[in-house]
Amino acid sequence: MNSEISLIIDIVVKDGLRDKQIEAFKELAPLVLKEEGCIQYELKEVQGDKNRFIILEKWASKEALLAHDKTAHMIEADSKSPIFREKTTVLKLFNI
Amino acid sequence: MNSEISLIIDIVVKDGLRDKQIEAFKELAPLVLKEEGCIQYELKEVQGDKNRFIILEKWASKEALLAHDKTAHMIEADSKSPIFREKTTVLKLFNI
Repeated sequence: MNSEISLIIDIVVKDGLRDKQIEAFKELAPLVLKEEGCIQYELKEVQGDKNRFIILEKWASKEALLAHDKTAHMIEADSKSPIFREKTTVLKLFNI
Repeated sequence: MNSEISLIIDIVVKDGLRDKQIEAFKELAPLVLKEEGCIQYELKEVQGDKNRFIILEKWASKEALLAHDKTAHMIEADSKSPIFREKTTVLKLFNI
């Protein structure tokens, strides 16, 4: 059975703080990509909205995603992101 | 330069017509995956919302995406999807 989990992280940044999101991701991504079970971790900009970003993630299993949420680098990143983010919405996606 | 375009198709289906979306995608996906420049084309279900689906797409270029929109199978699919869909939102995502 394929138990992969994809995530969409839908981000709205505070006006003028777009570059802070990009910098934070560039620091974080190499650490996340090294985690066991991380298949995809990409930051994208959204056409037509300069304050909106999407992170596309894919994890090999529920266990890998749970472990990811507990890493020191994610706990630190989550504590800092409210400085530049207005809103963060997480969608968990499953195979049909 | 990497000119890939990712798309998120955010779908809300009409109550009770969830299976129609799944069937339509199963017919369509093999045709789309054969198109030149199609890197990803996946239907996912959204945790916590039985009437919501996400299609994750990735295209090698703007030209490939434009050609995709004009294929006979997409024109037919787009004409039929309002039968079972309440709402379709398309986000175009670009590399940073």
